[in-house]
Amino acid sequence: MKIAVLGTGMVGAAIGTALVQAGHEVAMGSRTADNESGTQWANSLGEAARCVTFANAAAFGEIIFDCTNGANSLTALHSAGAGNLRGKILVHVANPLDFSNGMPPSLSICNTDSLGEQVQRAFPETRVVKALNTMNCDVMVDPSRVSGDHNLFLCGNDAATKAEVADHLCAWFGWKPGNVIDLGDITAARGMEMFLPLWLRLWASLGSPHFNIQIARKNPQ
Amino acid sequence: MKIAVLGTGMVGAAIGTALVQAGHEVAMGSRTADNESGTQWANSLGEAARCVTFANAAAFGEIIFDCTNGANSLTALHSAGAGNLRGKILVHVANPLDFSNGMPPSLSICNTDSLGEQVQRAFPETRVVKALNTMNCDVMVDPSRVSGDHNLFLCGNDAATKAEVADHLCAWFGWKPGNVIDLGDITAARGMEMFLPLWLRLWASLGSPHFNIQIARKNPQ
Repeated sequence: MKIAVLGTGMVGAAIGTALVQAGHEVAMGSRTADNESGTQWANSLGEAARCVTFANAAAFGEIIFDCTNGANSLTALHSAGAGNLRGKILVHVANPLDFSNGMPPSLSICNTDSLGEQVQRAFPETRVVKALNTMNCDVMVDPSRVSGDHNLFLCGNDAATKAEVADHLCAWFGWKPGNVIDLGDITAARGMEMFLPLWLRLWASLGSPHFNIQIARKNPQ
Repeated sequence: MKIAVLGTGMVGAAIGTALVQAGHEVAMGSRTADNESGTQWANSLGEAARCVTFANAAAFGEIIFDCTNGANSLTALHSAGAGNLRGKILVHVANPLDFSNGMPPSLSICNTDSLGEQVQRAFPETRVVKALNTMNCDVMVDPSRVSGDHNLFLCGNDAATKAEVADHLCAWFGWKPGNVIDLGDITAARGMEMFLPLWLRLWASLGSPHFNIQIARKNPQ
């Protein structure tokens, strides 16, 4: 499959690499096609990987992963172009982290809106599914790094699209279908993004970003 | 031990009942001593339970559980009186849920501040520990209702106070010490309270409030 990964940071590189390893052709999108991180990433992976502009990546991809810095997501997606995103699945991984007041970051948007909703509103003809944003990128693409039946959350406005994304994430990254939890429509992106402050505190307390949350359910006894 | 439970709702009743069952004397605090829910609760439990004013409850308690509606927490605590709270442990369970715009609720404060911090700032001589707010009240007082090694988070500015609260919650409600995670100072209340929107979506998706989150850690392999 031809897949676009927008963003050349750690998250984009982890997802892009995992997709190449799963047999896909990946175009990493950046503001400029000669982005240094993106070019290095592409060169390390051979012909299945390339670094191009946001617009060329979005035109190339049959499905698009938004792994941009949350502060720049909407700008990047507008550069990608509504026409190139139309009708396609956009897996929205970005979080609206705001580092302008130091560490730990706060959120630039939360509570009564979310970045996921802003993206869906800005690109109404794109099938946005928020997913993967509640964990470290190493865990996103290799859930076996964490023990147990930990969970992958997703939300979006179209049930069939969410089912397709869930199938892809299970097939490509190794998520177990029973560990995927559909949280409902795109407004659930509020809760998924607002989990980040707790995630950041857990990272500090546990001393490693390689953890995830698992839903413990009612005891049958 | 003499314990105050502020608030006559489901959370206060669950915690108050569990404390009486654990052998403590409990004063449930309300705006008025003749509060109907509080009086019924006290009558159902006999001499170890009583319903009194916020101020009388706080004066009675050697330790205080704040189980008020988050919208009223600061008002209730001011009614309880700084003098009655001075030097004591306040286990802050309340969440700043805002139902004014319908369901699901948003938060009345979040992101760069939290209700836990507001309470600690308003009562600097009280030893505030945020705890128990990330789960349903049945699970708070009986973690065995949920299977697995699910977690209890707490935060606060004094390490010895947090250790004392952790010991109490393990002894009184049956939490396993290894499942208690200290998230740091009281500013971690932001993350603990901002988890609520995800919790509410999980409740809707799972169809039951009897769940909790468990931290799945790095796979040793």
